[in-house]
Amino acid sequence: MKELKKELKISPSLREQEKISYASDVINVPEGGIDCNEGCNPYGFPPALEEAMADFDIKRFGPYPHSHAIYDGLREYWKGYSDIEPENVLLADGSISALYVIFGLFQAPGAVVLGNAPTFSDAEMAARMLGMEWRAVALNPDRNYRFDPDAFVEQITDDVTMIYIDNPNNPTGQVINLYAIEKILDRALEVGAGVVIDEAYGDFMPNQNSAMTLTEEYPNLIMVRTMSKAFGLAGLRVGYIIAGKPIIRYMKKLRDPYMVSEFAREMAGKALMYPYHFWNNMLDFAKMKREIREALKKAGHLSMAETDDMVSIFVLYHDDPAVDLQKVFWENKVLCVSGADFAGMERNFVRIRLPKMEDFPILLEAVQRIHNGDSDKNKNPQG
Amino acid sequence: MKELKKELKISPSLREQEKISYASDVINVPEGGIDCNEGCNPYGFPPALEEAMADFDIKRFGPYPHSHAIYDGLREYWKGYSDIEPENVLLADGSISALYVIFGLFQAPGAVVLGNAPTFSDAEMAARMLGMEWRAVALNPDRNYRFDPDAFVEQITDDVTMIYIDNPNNPTGQVINLYAIEKILDRALEVGAGVVIDEAYGDFMPNQNSAMTLTEEYPNLIMVRTMSKAFGLAGLRVGYIIAGKPIIRYMKKLRDPYMVSEFAREMAGKALMYPYHFWNNMLDFAKMKREIREALKKAGHLSMAETDDMVSIFVLYHDDPAVDLQKVFWENKVLCVSGADFAGMERNFVRIRLPKMEDFPILLEAVQRIHNGDSDKNKNPQG
Repeated sequence: MKELKKELKISPSLREQEKISYASDVINVPEGGIDCNEGCNPYGFPPALEEAMADFDIKRFGPYPHSHAIYDGLREYWKGYSDIEPENVLLADGSISALYVIFGLFQAPGAVVLGNAPTFSDAEMAARMLGMEWRAVALNPDRNYRFDPDAFVEQITDDVTMIYIDNPNNPTGQVINLYAIEKILDRALEVGAGVVIDEAYGDFMPNQNSAMTLTEEYPNLIMVRTMSKAFGLAGLRVGYIIAGKPIIRYMKKLRDPYMVSEFAREMAGKALMYPYHFWNNMLDFAKMKREIREALKKAGHLSMAETDDMVSIFVLYHDDPAVDLQKVFWENKVLCVSGADFAGMERNFVRIRLPKMEDFPILLEAVQRIHNGDSDKNKNPQG
Repeated sequence: MKELKKELKISPSLREQEKISYASDVINVPEGGIDCNEGCNPYGFPPALEEAMADFDIKRFGPYPHSHAIYDGLREYWKGYSDIEPENVLLADGSISALYVIFGLFQAPGAVVLGNAPTFSDAEMAARMLGMEWRAVALNPDRNYRFDPDAFVEQITDDVTMIYIDNPNNPTGQVINLYAIEKILDRALEVGAGVVIDEAYGDFMPNQNSAMTLTEEYPNLIMVRTMSKAFGLAGLRVGYIIAGKPIIRYMKKLRDPYMVSEFAREMAGKALMYPYHFWNNMLDFAKMKREIREALKKAGHLSMAETDDMVSIFVLYHDDPAVDLQKVFWENKVLCVSGADFAGMERNFVRIRLPKMEDFPILLEAVQRIHNGDSDKNKNPQG
């Protein structure tokens, strides 16, 4: 290897900033256990897509993507909530990529991003890696991590460049109501801040609560959605940004028009025709969350942070801060995400994505054992 | 629509910089004509892939991508040239996305990128949109746009942050020899500049001339390749970056690990097992280029810029600077890229991607008519 006479001029933020993210292309499910780690709908994608996938003309994997099927699908899916034209849309290969485009739009020396802690870690990372200041409003443990709109709005000062909010919140799975979102948008108008509402898990709340209904009203609103979660199509790599045309035009300067493949555009377009696909799944999630709440009612080690029943994810935390809760769940056959991968939480927290109902007994048993402390006893029968 | 009390804090480079790019998801082939616009191999992808595509388990479109097949394919494809481990690879959804990751690595106030003019326009755009200074070394018309390594090396001054070179050059299709690349890399070591060698069209030159052979020697070398061109898989959305492990680690801070879908990872891995797929295509390209050279031998309006016969693209220019050559070709049933979409060329230039041999007569006839001026005469029989 030859020698560099001078160091490479790597951007200082990349040099200095450690990356914290639970996204990984290696997964490690415990033997005989279940995967409650990744956000994808455990029930998979709408079965009606299988035929469309099988029928897709293989030759179309050759040329650059040109299909507009996804634009038609989006228009239809959001009819009555937002009037979406192709010029309001930027496609991305997933919502993390979408976030990099959006954050790039506001990237400048001294730029400040305001967000919750905890929130989707890759949003905080995007800001930091791009050299922006990330300013966190901590969800209050005394409110069981329930979002406080007034506390948040108070932090929207003149120097804030943009705001990032995921709704439902990742990792807690709590839904922020639309009135709170409007308060934030109104205050942001006063300081000229862009507001990103990342509804990656938004299909698990009623469309009426989606900020999509506000896109025609707020010129500072940028919506993010993905097909990876409720639609169960993480493998397709499709996310989308909806915003006013001027904002989308700026974003298109930052990316090529080919970010989503022909196949993915067609299949996403089709999937959007089945918005009720996940309604039954949501009822299952609600049932499972209620059973877990029930199990946690008697005294024990675990608590569940504020969450909404229909959302597929939630947070549990252990009363002993020294416990590595992800490890303990793994030993109890459940792979989940460590709280250490989120700002504002520690390793005695985990994010769990609910499994299919048929796998739920494994999760419930793990929760019960850990809550009751059987798990520790088993490990240290002497202790 | 509500009113912004203050303007949104959009990054100044995005506000000010116009985007020039020929990448578009709308194509407009003249009726009865041919598409010589997009860079994808007109012969398509290796036919052996069709079976693999049809056999792919549809269920795998659901979960996040985890397949490592493409890493195995890359290792095999480059065996004997470079010892590629997964830690040397960053996957991207195409080479434009790869460029945004790489340029992001060096983005900082005052960063300078050195490149050719003309070169792949989206590289220049990535630099400018990210607020970096793009410094161009013009290919000399007096050398028929042939790359001059000494002139380029002379411009590698202390303030250069990174260098971008596409090899073969896009749009001209000329191959830069490896000795010139080494000269550039050596000089760049002295100033601490990263060197991006974008071999998007690199499968159309012998692997011996690929800078991939230098990856273990130069810590400042970053290679870009794509499956969109010779492998005919633009619709899959797969590009890849090869570099030393420290550089790849920095880049991974800027992106999630899911940028390429499970299907695309599997199919790209398979495609890499058919490196001879495009050898016959290259012989066809050489034959077509020779026929065009032949047609241009007698006096006329058109010239061909320096190019290599086996590469699928080339540049023609018209002796009348007022001619909109793309328009004239379109009227002659050939869709191609305007020189106006590249710095260092004007609208009397076009980039043409060779068609299949069976479509070549349409292109050849267009070239002949325009060269001989029949085309103008037809339009203005009185003139």
